[in-house]
Amino acid sequence: MQETEAAVKIEQFIRDVPDFPVKGVIFKDITPLMGNHKGMKAAVRMIHDYFKDRKIDYVVGIESRGFIFGSLLADRLSAGFVPVRKPGKLPYKTLSKSYSLEYGTNTIEIHTDAIPAGARVLMVDDLLATGGTMAAACELVRQLGGHIVGVGFVIELCFLPGRAKLEGYDVHSLIKVE
Amino acid sequence: MQETEAAVKIEQFIRDVPDFPVKGVIFKDITPLMGNHKGMKAAVRMIHDYFKDRKIDYVVGIESRGFIFGSLLADRLSAGFVPVRKPGKLPYKTLSKSYSLEYGTNTIEIHTDAIPAGARVLMVDDLLATGGTMAAACELVRQLGGHIVGVGFVIELCFLPGRAKLEGYDVHSLIKVE
Repeated sequence: MQETEAAVKIEQFIRDVPDFPVKGVIFKDITPLMGNHKGMKAAVRMIHDYFKDRKIDYVVGIESRGFIFGSLLADRLSAGFVPVRKPGKLPYKTLSKSYSLEYGTNTIEIHTDAIPAGARVLMVDDLLATGGTMAAACELVRQLGGHIVGVGFVIELCFLPGRAKLEGYDVHSLIKVE
Repeated sequence: MQETEAAVKIEQFIRDVPDFPVKGVIFKDITPLMGNHKGMKAAVRMIHDYFKDRKIDYVVGIESRGFIFGSLLADRLSAGFVPVRKPGKLPYKTLSKSYSLEYGTNTIEIHTDAIPAGARVLMVDDLLATGGTMAAACELVRQLGGHIVGVGFVIELCFLPGRAKLEGYDVHSLIKVE
């Protein structure tokens, strides 16, 4: 299982930080991975290799850590990079989508001209947790007429229902935290 | 002048958005550049080519758009990538730096273990405006013992005193807006 072997290698660069952002949560800190260029190249290559034959036109990355993996994948796939951002950050005409959190709601935005209708799109973020942000981002891309060919993450928290929220999409994550 | 010719090519992907974020300001929107992989590769290559012989160990990118160009440059230089973030976003031990804005102050943070003492560091962001954020980021890197070998931007607003605030550093920008 080549993929699993490779995933074990990147796992050594993921640091557990207890009680972040709130007490009782063990945060998966990927900054040691970012700081190691071999680790980063391996992580990006593995996501790339899974999706590389999908004729991807654009990679969408979600603010902020998704910008890092998204832009590296776009470069590697020779695709355009499209940022999905927090409200008020994108300067041109935007499409917005709000979604529920445990307490309250969040909103994300995309430029209305970011993705031409019919374009083939790979969605990327660092972490799949509840899946709310990524589901909303997928909805924005679909509203623009984009065709989502896959959704890639570095880490997936399998004890949360994120994958169920992305049902119907080909979701690929490198490190599964049970 | 090869560099100037190339810069003219990237300029076609920069869009002027009037009255953003406030009335009277013409915002330089780089999302069309991000969306074009040839434009992105050219921009990253030009910053890379200027700094490539500096034996760079780490590239520091400033949240959020600096994450995009910073991580692409780190990849191209085979260097580690280090994020400088807004307060409360980095999970491990951090060093903080506050700096003055026209109204009020801003704070940025870096992980205390992100850069080993003596490491050679390239600082990257998309835009040089007043230079306050980048000057604060440089100060954080120096406090960790990092040696700043250069500061790269895609766009420089030459009518603002950003370059003066970064005096002593080798500052290189691709597009100079007079």
